[in-house]
Amino acid sequence: MSPSVDPRTGEELPAIAPDTTEAEIDALCDRATRVGAELARLGRHGRARMLESMADALEQRRDRIVETADRETALGTGRLGGELSRTAYQLRLFAEVLREGSYLEAVVDHAGPSPMGPRPDVRRILRPIGTVAVFGASNFPLAFSVPGGDTASALAAGCAVVAKAHPAHPATSVLAHEALAAGAAGVGLDGAPVSLVFGVDAGSTLVRHASVQAVGFTGSLAVGRLLADAAAARPSPIPFYGELGALNAVVVLPGAAASRPEQIAEGLVASFTLGVGQFCTKPGLVLVPEGDGGSRLVGELASRVAASSPGVMLGPDIARRFAERAAAITSQPGVSVLASSSRDADVRSSSGRPVVVRAEAGALRGVVLEECFGPLLVVASYDGPEQLASLLDLVGPGLTATVHGEPAEAAGADRVLEVLAGRVGRVVWNGYPTGVAVCWAMHHGGPYPATTSSLHTSVGATAIRRWLRPVAYQDVPDALLPEELREQPVPEATVPRRVDGVLVVPG
Amino acid sequence: MSPSVDPRTGEELPAIAPDTTEAEIDALCDRATRVGAELARLGRHGRARMLESMADALEQRRDRIVETADRETALGTGRLGGELSRTAYQLRLFAEVLREGSYLEAVVDHAGPSPMGPRPDVRRILRPIGTVAVFGASNFPLAFSVPGGDTASALAAGCAVVAKAHPAHPATSVLAHEALAAGAAGVGLDGAPVSLVFGVDAGSTLVRHASVQAVGFTGSLAVGRLLADAAAARPSPIPFYGELGALNAVVVLPGAAASRPEQIAEGLVASFTLGVGQFCTKPGLVLVPEGDGGSRLVGELASRVAASSPGVMLGPDIARRFAERAAAITSQPGVSVLASSSRDADVRSSSGRPVVVRAEAGALRGVVLEECFGPLLVVASYDGPEQLASLLDLVGPGLTATVHGEPAEAAGADRVLEVLAGRVGRVVWNGYPTGVAVCWAMHHGGPYPATTSSLHTSVGATAIRRWLRPVAYQDVPDALLPEELREQPVPEATVPRRVDGVLVVPG
Repeated sequence: MSPSVDPRTGEELPAIAPDTTEAEIDALCDRATRVGAELARLGRHGRARMLESMADALEQRRDRIVETADRETALGTGRLGGELSRTAYQLRLFAEVLREGSYLEAVVDHAGPSPMGPRPDVRRILRPIGTVAVFGASNFPLAFSVPGGDTASALAAGCAVVAKAHPAHPATSVLAHEALAAGAAGVGLDGAPVSLVFGVDAGSTLVRHASVQAVGFTGSLAVGRLLADAAAARPSPIPFYGELGALNAVVVLPGAAASRPEQIAEGLVASFTLGVGQFCTKPGLVLVPEGDGGSRLVGELASRVAASSPGVMLGPDIARRFAERAAAITSQPGVSVLASSSRDADVRSSSGRPVVVRAEAGALRGVVLEECFGPLLVVASYDGPEQLASLLDLVGPGLTATVHGEPAEAAGADRVLEVLAGRVGRVVWNGYPTGVAVCWAMHHGGPYPATTSSLHTSVGATAIRRWLRPVAYQDVPDALLPEELREQPVPEATVPRRVDGVLVVPG
Repeated sequence: MSPSVDPRTGEELPAIAPDTTEAEIDALCDRATRVGAELARLGRHGRARMLESMADALEQRRDRIVETADRETALGTGRLGGELSRTAYQLRLFAEVLREGSYLEAVVDHAGPSPMGPRPDVRRILRPIGTVAVFGASNFPLAFSVPGGDTASALAAGCAVVAKAHPAHPATSVLAHEALAAGAAGVGLDGAPVSLVFGVDAGSTLVRHASVQAVGFTGSLAVGRLLADAAAARPSPIPFYGELGALNAVVVLPGAAASRPEQIAEGLVASFTLGVGQFCTKPGLVLVPEGDGGSRLVGELASRVAASSPGVMLGPDIARRFAERAAAITSQPGVSVLASSSRDADVRSSSGRPVVVRAEAGALRGVVLEECFGPLLVVASYDGPEQLASLLDLVGPGLTATVHGEPAEAAGADRVLEVLAGRVGRVVWNGYPTGVAVCWAMHHGGPYPATTSSLHTSVGATAIRRWLRPVAYQDVPDALLPEELREQPVPEATVPRRVDGVLVVPG
């Protein structure tokens, strides 16, 4: 693979690993199949301990991992430390998910009569789908890469993982991989449940490999769609969970614009420039009302952006693509630059300069409404609820949508909220879309092109559902059933179950 | 469309409807979008009443529907009456699913601290995905066609349905469609929640239509894969749930073969000739042990099949394809006919003659291990657990797998069961795979090519999950939340929820 680069200096970093060959991938996939059986043998409680051990191992290596990731990504040690904490937390949340056991969706229907005659005893549970391929993202080297939500949820499900390292942070990938292996060894697992591959061809081979049963991907629309198409075109198609990014519209209602324009402008600038705009949840469009409040908000946006500093993006290619995309947007008819950072960048390469542009209503189409990966925000104005509705009709599906409103105007906001909820995976009120909390209720996804599958999430407890498939057991003797489906499960196997239609939660 | 045929006589039936044009499909899809909003307004309890009203309307029209379906499919009024009962039951089960409310997967996480800083209030619920296209199957004109599991589960989810009538039973489709419309009108729904289209091109147009958000399909591997590929290749890919059929292996363990060979042979013949073998769950392969019990079982199979009668298949094309497929199987090296029905068929066309063939271990490949739609069963022998394991390795994924064993040999069957559960969607013990009970625990699906998505089911309560996607609400004011997510839901909106990680079931 081509060497990675220090984004702050543009200098090449030492090569870490050669591209993984097809023969090596075959061997890794064979090993993954064997390790999958080991993960099943560990059981829910054993896997919970393994995930906690992995979290500990990552934290024990915190300084070295964060320092290496910072050198490869320039995201800063503060942010990267937070990412490591997030991933450790996600691993521990899945330990909780495993011990609680609802994720198995256990259902027991005893034999009985039905209008179609006698019904057999039927019991259903979810089982791991098989080996999962995970593609690391450039912008979250610790939270959506070799470690992170996809890997944590797949391991929790009982699936071995083959991870494709992102070429921009290979050294970080190797260190994280070592930590995960150490965590697994710590609970006596025979074999590493996560394997690591390098190179574009290796990624492509992985998606087509007969052993791989599902893919988790976070990255660009172009690459994501290419791989999704390859997954669908296999002799045996497999599910492809691609998180591809979004525009993430923000609506400011008139009351909010009137009462706190500076505060909203401050929050928006912080959000769209966070991590130099390299978040899939970056707000990319804000709709502000005509009038005094809206004008003050836009003025404050412009002055804050003018006073902002350029940041170091993840690498020279990403910085170049951002500059090209920003130029394409600002050259559209009806689009003008409101402000851009006027400060010089103290960097030799990979600089990303924050910019806020204004678009007339007629300019809201094409590239202006597509995701721009980097610190760029489009501002458009609306005059009354009718025009707001018609502008919202132009905005396509997304990961998130945000509404700022005052309590007094909340009642009138129900239609706007309903429209947005029909189009995105997360609706935010009086907040900012960057920052995706790891919790049971979180959903991170949205209709295409936000994600390739809007039915499931890549963040939060239910991310595990992507790597599981149901199996029903009909009239199977108790001793042959998975232990959670037995008539009187032992205490460790007692989980919430639906029994003859009634949800029963252990006391 | 080409006219349908009376399978018993080969005579053309009166034409029912012309092919639906693209302009008509546009109009139907527009209407479906509007009706989707009506279904949302009805709410869970209103949709539950609608499904019950549809069940009533189908039952009120029972005689005419069953008689029409029998003329078009020759499946017999007894079986078709059972199918109608099954569909009415499925509709009523979904009414129960809606009222119970767990299907919404409601999750509430209150704001609080986290290792990454303060976490917002996040609440998650499932929402309808949008308009669903349903493709009717030839072999279940009432249970997997215009009415049936896909339509019932989609309507329950709150999705309008555009159904493609199967060309072999257009008149049945029209009558069933009328019943569903009458049921919806009975609860005051403004517009029919199910639309009907005709013709191969209409089906293809539907899968590519921008308004259609998901597809439910039951049918052949060839057509299913074609449409699945089209769904994946759309500008915005959509989920395609294709149930494509399977081989459905049966394993007879030595104890079972020794103690009840005649009984198992009787059950197997009844199962593989049921509905003239036109079940996706038809047992297509049985592995019997060498030795006396196995020999008696095979002998009994042969004599029962020799004494059986040919049946009328769904139509001349299906009968011709069955005869061709049976000939292809019996002409393989290592395959020989054990017995076939010796009776004459009292039909002028569409006759399907039951046949049981023996295959040597070396012949277990290719067409011999593929689904044969019709009354054909392959028998192979194994000598000991090692050879059984190696033969099972040859059998690909499927919808079901069945094991017959005596209590004394159950303990040794755990490995066989585990292997099969890793490869199919339903494992049956001492039973037969035909007959898929409608209940909360049922799963009907399996790894490709059994289904295009093994993660979800087309039968039973959880079939609804295919038509729903999650949305998270972050810090949204209580009054703007879906009523099931509010802090203190009203009694009708009180559903099982996970609150701060703990599953809470209403008392």
